[in-house]
Amino acid sequence: MKVYLDNNATTMCDPLVVEAMQPFFSDVYGNPNSLHKFGTASHPALSTAIDQVYTALNASDNDDIVFTSGATESNNWVLQSVWADKILNGDKNHIVTTEVEHPAILATCKFLEDQGVKVTYLPVNEQGVVEVHTVKSFITDKTALVSIMWASNETGMINPIKEIGEICKEKGVLFHSDAVQAIGKIPVDLQDVHLDFASFSAHKFHGPKGIGALYIKDSQDLSPLMHGGDQMGGRRSGTLNVAYIVGMGLAMELATKNIQATMASIRAKRDRLEDAILELSDTFVIGDRNNRTPNTILISIKGVEGEGMLWDLNNGQIGASTGSACASADLEANSVMLAIGADNELAHTGIRLSLSRFTTETEIDYTISHFKDAVGRLRAISSSFAKQKPTAGGEVQECELHHH
Amino acid sequence: MKVYLDNNATTMCDPLVVEAMQPFFSDVYGNPNSLHKFGTASHPALSTAIDQVYTALNASDNDDIVFTSGATESNNWVLQSVWADKILNGDKNHIVTTEVEHPAILATCKFLEDQGVKVTYLPVNEQGVVEVHTVKSFITDKTALVSIMWASNETGMINPIKEIGEICKEKGVLFHSDAVQAIGKIPVDLQDVHLDFASFSAHKFHGPKGIGALYIKDSQDLSPLMHGGDQMGGRRSGTLNVAYIVGMGLAMELATKNIQATMASIRAKRDRLEDAILELSDTFVIGDRNNRTPNTILISIKGVEGEGMLWDLNNGQIGASTGSACASADLEANSVMLAIGADNELAHTGIRLSLSRFTTETEIDYTISHFKDAVGRLRAISSSFAKQKPTAGGEVQECELHHH
Repeated sequence: MKVYLDNNATTMCDPLVVEAMQPFFSDVYGNPNSLHKFGTASHPALSTAIDQVYTALNASDNDDIVFTSGATESNNWVLQSVWADKILNGDKNHIVTTEVEHPAILATCKFLEDQGVKVTYLPVNEQGVVEVHTVKSFITDKTALVSIMWASNETGMINPIKEIGEICKEKGVLFHSDAVQAIGKIPVDLQDVHLDFASFSAHKFHGPKGIGALYIKDSQDLSPLMHGGDQMGGRRSGTLNVAYIVGMGLAMELATKNIQATMASIRAKRDRLEDAILELSDTFVIGDRNNRTPNTILISIKGVEGEGMLWDLNNGQIGASTGSACASADLEANSVMLAIGADNELAHTGIRLSLSRFTTETEIDYTISHFKDAVGRLRAISSSFAKQKPTAGGEVQECELHHH
Repeated sequence: MKVYLDNNATTMCDPLVVEAMQPFFSDVYGNPNSLHKFGTASHPALSTAIDQVYTALNASDNDDIVFTSGATESNNWVLQSVWADKILNGDKNHIVTTEVEHPAILATCKFLEDQGVKVTYLPVNEQGVVEVHTVKSFITDKTALVSIMWASNETGMINPIKEIGEICKEKGVLFHSDAVQAIGKIPVDLQDVHLDFASFSAHKFHGPKGIGALYIKDSQDLSPLMHGGDQMGGRRSGTLNVAYIVGMGLAMELATKNIQATMASIRAKRDRLEDAILELSDTFVIGDRNNRTPNTILISIKGVEGEGMLWDLNNGQIGASTGSACASADLEANSVMLAIGADNELAHTGIRLSLSRFTTETEIDYTISHFKDAVGRLRAISSSFAKQKPTAGGEVQECELHHH
């Protein structure tokens, strides 16, 4: 049996989505910008996809939703264009973000720091959540943008986006959220929160890799990142990726319709898996499960290196992660765990399991069994664990935190 | 019969390419950055695709070829990052390009002018070609970059990239080419020309829309446009679009192997079509066909508005263009024709026909017949043509040029 539990890294493209994309490769292949029938033949499908996205996000007709090549582009676009518009060509000099953002935010902020921008990386609390009063206290008259992820790819923890949006609105500061991990996991209603910009990526919700979107409230000004042929109303140039736009529209519809039922179903499986692992001694799950995306577990197993666990699971055909795939080339301590105050040893023992709506009960059974065996195997050869006296298991324990 | 003659705008995705991409949607769907088997399962196919691209372009192992979301991104990347690296954070202030570039170059240059960059838009000669001595005369000590398209999307005319490369090397100036229209149409050998950067787009050579590449000679420094998870060796972040990378690799191989035979076959059909249209009186083709991509005809038919011709062809199920699809939303005079010195009337009468390796002899027959009828229909209702005495047809005529 193969079990894919790394859905925060990427997801299987829904076969319905794959099927919907097929006509747009070799049949309806014209450039949508062309005036002839080969081009205009794609327009009805593009309209449907756009409608699906607006409906899924409950965006207003006044808002713009622009297709991009993914959330990395959407995030770079917002940060770099706010820099160009409000800092380079304006009187602001400051961006507020958090220590636990995805690398697409953090690396772009580092680039902007090199260009002279002041960036504040807000700390998170021991739950991995940014607190509203912290955001409020760091906004100044010079702040151009606040960028805070909706839900964490690493922990699944959900930030108080609605409350932070109200602060930003009150202070007159632009507010962006990397909402990549929210779609298909929790309800997203863009008319219920005050967000100026939000980034999305189709491959996180069973769409194809290489397409995403940027939501722009009230179609407000934002310099393009991609200049050119004025596609997307001049907001994002480049020939439209018709097949993937069609795929993303359907994927977003499938991921968001019946979101409450989907959440409940995933949550039940996740909780069963989480409870079973917590029966083992010296295991710690990060964050209150009620404020976590219902598919995610970030767990520390004392005495078991995350890398070792990953390889043992891999041998059992279970795909898991020690953290963000976008940071997994380097086998370093989980930076998000360090940010929430875990000590270095704990940060090296994190394993992230992330489910999807395709995860089955049988897969959970298999994973529980393999996981427990793996912990036994790895602890038996662990020098660090052998020296310690195991504490009693069987209950949810708080992560041991040492603020540094 | 349907005849697609707008292959400079976009192409049909080769069914072999579509087939090759299929496993990477719902079967081998892991994130290539993940360490488990779901992720690493994509590595052999990615390696193959990269090899295919290096081989097709005859790139050196020392060079970098980085996948992007298309040539619009590649072009923006080079221009914006040379600006950041050599102008904003360096002592240069000048970029040289031409009047006839694709909007992805021209619009980015306009953006950079707004940021204070000096941009020279070189004129082209009456053939639509930029001349080497012109390039040489505009390079100064402050020039950071020369960016000149390899072949024109509008006219198909081929610039002297090898000679311009030698000038740029001699002057120590970076040289970029938008090579989008070259692949699959003329031989491209990156070890035979001195290019620092070159942009490519898969959908111009029967690959999917939404993927392209940037060639970077000797893996030289160039700040990323997309910061993030350090994919592509840190050069271009964002989860890899595995399916499209696989598709682009195969598409490039299919487009470039046997290029001489492909060229000869397309050229024979193109010339037959061109000769047939030139039998009509008062028709003018732009540029020497021996220095033109073998698939392209940009033709003016006196007294026939380009838009009218396009609609008549469209009614006959023939897809053509009045020029770049990326500029076709506005029904203005063809700016490239204006740049090469055509008068306004002539610039309104341009029709571009662009063939592909999938174009058949039967399609050419049908097009010749419909095209001739269409010219008759449209001239019969043309007020401007009726007032003029038609001149004798039957031979290749030079475009009437009025430099302005």
